[in-house]
Amino acid sequence: MARQERAIRTRRLILEAAGAVFDEHGYTATTISMVLERADVTKGALYFHFSSKESLAQAVLDEQLSLGAVPPQPCKLQEIVDVTFVFGQRLLSNSLLKGSVRLAVDQCAPPGVDHSGPFRQWADHLVVVLEQARAQGELLPTVEPRQTVELLVGAFAGIQLMSRALTDRDDLAERISVLWGHILPSIAVPGLLTAIDRGPDRGLRVLATIDEADAERAELDLSRR
Amino acid sequence: MARQERAIRTRRLILEAAGAVFDEHGYTATTISMVLERADVTKGALYFHFSSKESLAQAVLDEQLSLGAVPPQPCKLQEIVDVTFVFGQRLLSNSLLKGSVRLAVDQCAPPGVDHSGPFRQWADHLVVVLEQARAQGELLPTVEPRQTVELLVGAFAGIQLMSRALTDRDDLAERISVLWGHILPSIAVPGLLTAIDRGPDRGLRVLATIDEADAERAELDLSRR
Repeated sequence: MARQERAIRTRRLILEAAGAVFDEHGYTATTISMVLERADVTKGALYFHFSSKESLAQAVLDEQLSLGAVPPQPCKLQEIVDVTFVFGQRLLSNSLLKGSVRLAVDQCAPPGVDHSGPFRQWADHLVVVLEQARAQGELLPTVEPRQTVELLVGAFAGIQLMSRALTDRDDLAERISVLWGHILPSIAVPGLLTAIDRGPDRGLRVLATIDEADAERAELDLSRR
Repeated sequence: MARQERAIRTRRLILEAAGAVFDEHGYTATTISMVLERADVTKGALYFHFSSKESLAQAVLDEQLSLGAVPPQPCKLQEIVDVTFVFGQRLLSNSLLKGSVRLAVDQCAPPGVDHSGPFRQWADHLVVVLEQARAQGELLPTVEPRQTVELLVGAFAGIQLMSRALTDRDDLAERISVLWGHILPSIAVPGLLTAIDRGPDRGLRVLATIDEADAERAELDLSRR
């Protein structure tokens, strides 16, 4: 393995371990030694990538947006719906994402860690997609995209939190479906309401297409070698 | 002051101090000594009312529902809207409520503290009011009250959290208004949509009527003596 590739893998390993520890213990109770033990890397390797617990937390927070990526859709509202279902589905198994979400909703961010970052980044990302939806005539004229996406980001944060508190996120997909059932009639043109797929299994189905595409790409890479 | 009355006051004093400390430091970092110092009571007084940090946290959580009480309204949907605005308004200044909310959204509840309690209690309370709204013909026939109230409770939790992270809750009333603007069209019969008051200053106005009623009651009590 090339040196650079190995460094990228180690960094990833540390981030995933940090996510798991932050998720289980919260920011305050987490120590660098706990992350070292979980990642099974040397102290030197960790400090090569991250200078402190703060910078580790910041890196975990910064990963959040990339973990919610979905394939583009002709209907941009469907794409936004997909983001919420895929994010919810990944939240069941991805420790890095779990840790990132816990840090974002944690009130006790120390100076130097911007825990409000994910809220702003998600809103900034989704407002672009919602503007595309508007350009394509998908939205009711009353929609103000910035207001709507900030509502979605805030509501999603609370819904996953309530689902975690009550059922350890077992019913999260169901709750996301209910959210869209209540919000879509206020933002989508009537003709789209039945066309948009907001079934609770939407996240699983979108993830399956992502995995398929990844597998095809890998096969193509191999045949080219 | 009668002995019992003094005990009730002391308990309240301790609860308010505990709420403030839990809000500022979170459950894990809070110690009984911090609460003692804030409340300025003796250790004996505190342990007379609360046997441990856990029982103190539980009592702070249990206070949440009573802090969201509003006057009844002829329109039951208006009453539910009022609960959210009054709760949001009180969250700006009431330390006990702030601490209670922080404990509820804290993932790190120790065994013995039921931090999911407020989510369930709010849903159980609001579903009764929403059923009254249904009986009065205020709801669209598609509404399933349990689903809708759980969405409201979860969404509210996240919206206050996002508002806290971005503006220290400065824009919370505005965000609650946006929430209702997106949800009401999916639950209220069309004729009610313009009649329901969801102005961002709704919380302040309802609180003013509560204060007025309290003042009148106090005057009446005095004149009866």
